[in-house]
Amino acid sequence: MAEPIEDFYAVIPAGGVGSRLWPLSRAEAPKFLHDLTGSGVSLLRNTWDRLLPLTGPNRIAVVTGKAHEHRVEDELPDIPEGNVFIESSPRESAAAIGLAAAILQRREPDVIIGSFAADHHISRQRAFEFAVRQSVALARAGYISTIGIAPSEPSVGFGYIQKGDEIDVEGAPMAAIVEQFVEKPDLDTARKYYADRNFLWNAGMFISRADVLLAELAANEPELHAGLLEIAEAWDTDRRAEVTDRIWPGLKKIAIDYAVAEPAAEKGRLAVVPGHFDWDDVGDFASLAKLISGGRPDRMSILGRNEMVLADESTGLVVSQTNRVIAVVGVQGLIVVDTEDALLVTTSEHAQRVKSVVGTLQSRGDDRVL
Amino acid sequence: MAEPIEDFYAVIPAGGVGSRLWPLSRAEAPKFLHDLTGSGVSLLRNTWDRLLPLTGPNRIAVVTGKAHEHRVEDELPDIPEGNVFIESSPRESAAAIGLAAAILQRREPDVIIGSFAADHHISRQRAFEFAVRQSVALARAGYISTIGIAPSEPSVGFGYIQKGDEIDVEGAPMAAIVEQFVEKPDLDTARKYYADRNFLWNAGMFISRADVLLAELAANEPELHAGLLEIAEAWDTDRRAEVTDRIWPGLKKIAIDYAVAEPAAEKGRLAVVPGHFDWDDVGDFASLAKLISGGRPDRMSILGRNEMVLADESTGLVVSQTNRVIAVVGVQGLIVVDTEDALLVTTSEHAQRVKSVVGTLQSRGDDRVL
Repeated sequence: MAEPIEDFYAVIPAGGVGSRLWPLSRAEAPKFLHDLTGSGVSLLRNTWDRLLPLTGPNRIAVVTGKAHEHRVEDELPDIPEGNVFIESSPRESAAAIGLAAAILQRREPDVIIGSFAADHHISRQRAFEFAVRQSVALARAGYISTIGIAPSEPSVGFGYIQKGDEIDVEGAPMAAIVEQFVEKPDLDTARKYYADRNFLWNAGMFISRADVLLAELAANEPELHAGLLEIAEAWDTDRRAEVTDRIWPGLKKIAIDYAVAEPAAEKGRLAVVPGHFDWDDVGDFASLAKLISGGRPDRMSILGRNEMVLADESTGLVVSQTNRVIAVVGVQGLIVVDTEDALLVTTSEHAQRVKSVVGTLQSRGDDRVL
Repeated sequence: MAEPIEDFYAVIPAGGVGSRLWPLSRAEAPKFLHDLTGSGVSLLRNTWDRLLPLTGPNRIAVVTGKAHEHRVEDELPDIPEGNVFIESSPRESAAAIGLAAAILQRREPDVIIGSFAADHHISRQRAFEFAVRQSVALARAGYISTIGIAPSEPSVGFGYIQKGDEIDVEGAPMAAIVEQFVEKPDLDTARKYYADRNFLWNAGMFISRADVLLAELAANEPELHAGLLEIAEAWDTDRRAEVTDRIWPGLKKIAIDYAVAEPAAEKGRLAVVPGHFDWDDVGDFASLAKLISGGRPDRMSILGRNEMVLADESTGLVVSQTNRVIAVVGVQGLIVVDTEDALLVTTSEHAQRVKSVVGTLQSRGDDRVL
């Protein structure tokens, strides 16, 4: 087995409720704390396990909300005490990843960081590691690198990255310059992208030297950058709470894509490495159903307590989180999600609408089940 | 309001689990103990309330199993102590109704009894009473009378009764001789019956003098008849338990239709009165969904805790028996039955298959939820 990468640090932003996965995903137990793949452990733990060969246990940091601190520590018992960075309130990905970059760069000036979502599914570990190692080589050469997923179908659910010219960097044989980012396309366009092979899914993974990332942020969002530096300076001192409380709530809410990646791409400083592994953001129950069934909609998939589910002439997905008997009789392509205090019944076609149910519950003040 | 009928006694056989209504209907809480119509009270209580104007509170008897004695008394607090007849084991309708007939006939030799299922739905009270009063008039004239329901559609779900010649009995202007009983027809035949108007649904209601019913039973099932008489003789004495325990378990299991009604029809002794009221045996969830929706499948019907159900672009039936939130999103014609320890999801088309789920649970030894 290959050794961990000496100058590399992984950052896992663990925020986001995932309300399209309600009632599985809740404010108190968001998506990343759930086992959504039937692996036996949470998506967060999967992410940790996937990064471990690249970093070792002492070089992974998690950025998460106050409410999840203990759950995160329970999931990752080996994480060093100082590597759980608590956001006092949610401020989107540029602030979360920027904070980690600023703290880690103070601790270790030449560190290379990579950010990896806490709640995505990835299989084919060796292909993943190969893509990360190439990205680290690119980062050492001064690039900000992203891993773009080689599409397995013409999806309209993801943004795309268009590959440009090859980059000649030792250790990154598949690297290319990012030509442009493209928003989620319509189906015809997605089909063209799929046939083209130069369009990759934007999976939101970014790898770069921390100082390079911060410099790019400084150029595009100087106030956000200055605020993060001031917090980072106080972070490992007894002034952390005071400075954070003063500055954090006023920081701009912006995605790292807009604050760093897209401007860097325009300057020709963003590299992309194609990732030839299965990747899924498990964004809604349609995505989950597909994942669990292995793409075979003609079967009945069960996530959770298999032995409690009786399926008779039925297909779809049953998520069973209780010790109740669940009988599905003669229904096709249905999604049934059974939790202690809430039940959802929907279809893959309507999976996106689940978010609106959460909205309705919020407006009713039904916080008990959110 | 009309007075109760002096010489009339109503008998309510309250047995039958109704396994096609699982998980609502259970061994411990069968169908007749549930509010399946949204009326606020159980079907058994509905039946009692419907009969009360015809009998008064002292002339209704219930035949039920040992396990349900207390629940029945809770539902019917006004029932006289001696009017709950306990079957030590289920022995089908001829034994249940025959036992009631034999006991009541000993208490009151000329009594007329009518048997009415504990778990059917009937609306239009005055039309129901009119049909019963006509049947009592026929019973006084020596007939066994049944009430046949005027079909509201060409149903394949019920057996039919073919009307024959009119009967000229005072107080029974709509009475006719039963020409024959017909088993559940196919759809083409059901359409012919519906157009014909001489075919009525067999709702299993029988009204006759107790001695006439017992004589018919004696002619067709002499051993069953003898056993019931022996039990009835001991019933209101301290020998009840001893005699019942000895005889009851050996009694033949047979439906009253075969033991009494069909043979009587062959002899021209069975009368029928058309019942022009809504009637439903609420036999499965398809039937329940239709009943609750008022026959409008394009809406979402809710039985139970309305405020807990969030329906978004959905139609069908949700039965909510817990305090869980139930969200149904973009599903059409679905039946969702949510109870504390079991959940069923099916469609009207597959409602009959629910029974097989119960069979599977039984074979697995999952008695907890049966």
